[in-house]
Amino acid sequence: MSTSAGLVIPCKAAVAWEAGKPLVIEQVEVAPPQAMEVRIKIKYTSLCRTDLHFWEAKGNTQLFPRIFGHEAAGIVESVGEGVKDLDVGDHVLPVFTGECGECGHCKSEESNMCDLLRINATRGVMLADGNSRFSLKGKPINHFLGTSTFSEYTVVHSGCVVKINPLAPLDKVCILSCGISTGLGSIFNVAKPKKGSSVAVFGLGAVGLAAAEAARIAGASRIIGVDRSSKRFEEAKKFGVNEFLNLKEHDRPIQEVIAEITNGGVDRSIECTGNIDNMISAFECVHDGWGVAVLVGVPNKDAVFMTKPINVLNERTLKGTFFGNYKPRSDLPSVVDMYMNKKLELEKFITHHVPFSEINTAFELMLKGQGLRCIINMEA
Amino acid sequence: MSTSAGLVIPCKAAVAWEAGKPLVIEQVEVAPPQAMEVRIKIKYTSLCRTDLHFWEAKGNTQLFPRIFGHEAAGIVESVGEGVKDLDVGDHVLPVFTGECGECGHCKSEESNMCDLLRINATRGVMLADGNSRFSLKGKPINHFLGTSTFSEYTVVHSGCVVKINPLAPLDKVCILSCGISTGLGSIFNVAKPKKGSSVAVFGLGAVGLAAAEAARIAGASRIIGVDRSSKRFEEAKKFGVNEFLNLKEHDRPIQEVIAEITNGGVDRSIECTGNIDNMISAFECVHDGWGVAVLVGVPNKDAVFMTKPINVLNERTLKGTFFGNYKPRSDLPSVVDMYMNKKLELEKFITHHVPFSEINTAFELMLKGQGLRCIINMEA
Repeated sequence: MSTSAGLVIPCKAAVAWEAGKPLVIEQVEVAPPQAMEVRIKIKYTSLCRTDLHFWEAKGNTQLFPRIFGHEAAGIVESVGEGVKDLDVGDHVLPVFTGECGECGHCKSEESNMCDLLRINATRGVMLADGNSRFSLKGKPINHFLGTSTFSEYTVVHSGCVVKINPLAPLDKVCILSCGISTGLGSIFNVAKPKKGSSVAVFGLGAVGLAAAEAARIAGASRIIGVDRSSKRFEEAKKFGVNEFLNLKEHDRPIQEVIAEITNGGVDRSIECTGNIDNMISAFECVHDGWGVAVLVGVPNKDAVFMTKPINVLNERTLKGTFFGNYKPRSDLPSVVDMYMNKKLELEKFITHHVPFSEINTAFELMLKGQGLRCIINMEA
Repeated sequence: MSTSAGLVIPCKAAVAWEAGKPLVIEQVEVAPPQAMEVRIKIKYTSLCRTDLHFWEAKGNTQLFPRIFGHEAAGIVESVGEGVKDLDVGDHVLPVFTGECGECGHCKSEESNMCDLLRINATRGVMLADGNSRFSLKGKPINHFLGTSTFSEYTVVHSGCVVKINPLAPLDKVCILSCGISTGLGSIFNVAKPKKGSSVAVFGLGAVGLAAAEAARIAGASRIIGVDRSSKRFEEAKKFGVNEFLNLKEHDRPIQEVIAEITNGGVDRSIECTGNIDNMISAFECVHDGWGVAVLVGVPNKDAVFMTKPINVLNERTLKGTFFGNYKPRSDLPSVVDMYMNKKLELEKFITHHVPFSEINTAFELMLKGQGLRCIINMEA
């Protein structure tokens, strides 16, 4: 048991007071974990586009003040009542979605969309009592995705906490708790390309590049990157992308271009932008008879997916995935182990480092489209 | 070698002279098979909705005079040059789609959409020379789907001829050459429901009932039939359908009703009507996380499949199938064997019998929606 167990911990957290305004490092108070909760000392966190999206809050719920952050790694400081499989000192990844182990989804081999702990971006409180564990001068601050890792300490439901190999470097594996695993899983768990096959990846951000990297590891021979920015292609080469199509350079549907250069279509496609036109292209660019398209990117809520049904009937498959179909607690430790066994390189996703005090720099870099992952060191 | 090999055979065929008008039994001449072709003495044929569809020719190519028919069984009378794996006397099923064995689709484990011999409803001639093998008083008569089984003799590309167990009764297994196999394969090869799962079947015609029967054989425990006619439910019970939803009795989308009665959706759905609203319902009625919807029914060419992308992203799968994903020559013999081993009952699909001379009765029954399959005995 740690000496702080059961006590409120005062610590620093980056608080978003208003949509789109720089975060402010504040002294907050973090309450002890309640039943089935875990309090974690965050060591490293990184910025993911989802943080940016809800921080900008354009058309989204305005839930401020709020502590963002959901890609991170840390060490368990204390555990609440009833937590049996996590202990003080465990190295963990907090995850924005969870695994209760009891619901139909957790019991299904095919799903990772836990009924109890599924992602919920509009909730700013803990499930147990509907309250926040964060406060500032007595006033509650909203949680984000049940993780709120832009804080030296945070409280997370134990079903969203993944115990990992204690030898894994936390400044690297922290990026596995969201985007990178999403991309990897979309290939390893869903698209499953065969050796020698062709794969189109729409969107060469971190998620798309993780999908490309996974396709490379799976032995795909043609990995076609599709993006609106040619400068991304240079970087993408490091992740196995060996052909590039710039959406802006074609005045006909890109699926027609892809069909032409691949003799009918690619074997697999992965859509990581969330743009509805790209979703349709990603589906229609796969080969009839065997093509599988996997949607990863989150769409605008008014978007409508449209295609001629004959495109489906000609034996194409359309699948969607959430977090790369990984069940966080059951499956993520093996992804960490892939890194430890040198089957997966994480370093190339990490393009920037900043100390916690400069967390707003990470936001600026992402807004400018610079780099892939910026690691925020909570102790620097 | 048969005595008729190499000679023109005069025989009876049911000729469609005009769209929607009764067929006329005529004396036609059937030319010998050319290279890679086979001439078959048809013993039994049955009527499938696709024959009716192209005979009515509403909005379709008008290709008359024409000899329809594509569900049949017969015996090889003679073979053309280069045919190695079929011989005079072989018991065979002619099939409307083929397997050349050489193209990308034939070489793929996942596809049955042969590039060379894929279904083509607008061609009325043989591939080899672009001519018909049928003539009447010297004038050519169009083929249909490369099979034209409403004739005592017909010529078919060897890649569309399936050699089957010679002990199989041709008056039963003839129905395996199209609709019934399509329904069976949509479950066995594509949807693959697990034991104890729930399956919704849209459209309780022969194809849908074959899908239901396959779901029953696969161990599905809830098989929900969806149709616009409640009278079909009684018959459907024989095929494992144990719940029924009448589309006309609900004034909200049927997917909502299905989600309600199944705690979130069925595990699998099969769409056999080709109606676009049903296609969308079939997709949206499967459970998030693991649901798989399979489209079988052929849509109107102007139809557009539309759904919110979040329905896909929530880990639903949409698949299309053609002929139940069976590769005809490689896979159909095993379906015949399922019948021979009593794992599959075909008798219950056969509701009527007529002699060839009364073939128009089969059309009338189908137009009235009576029965499932009408067997036409070519020798009676």
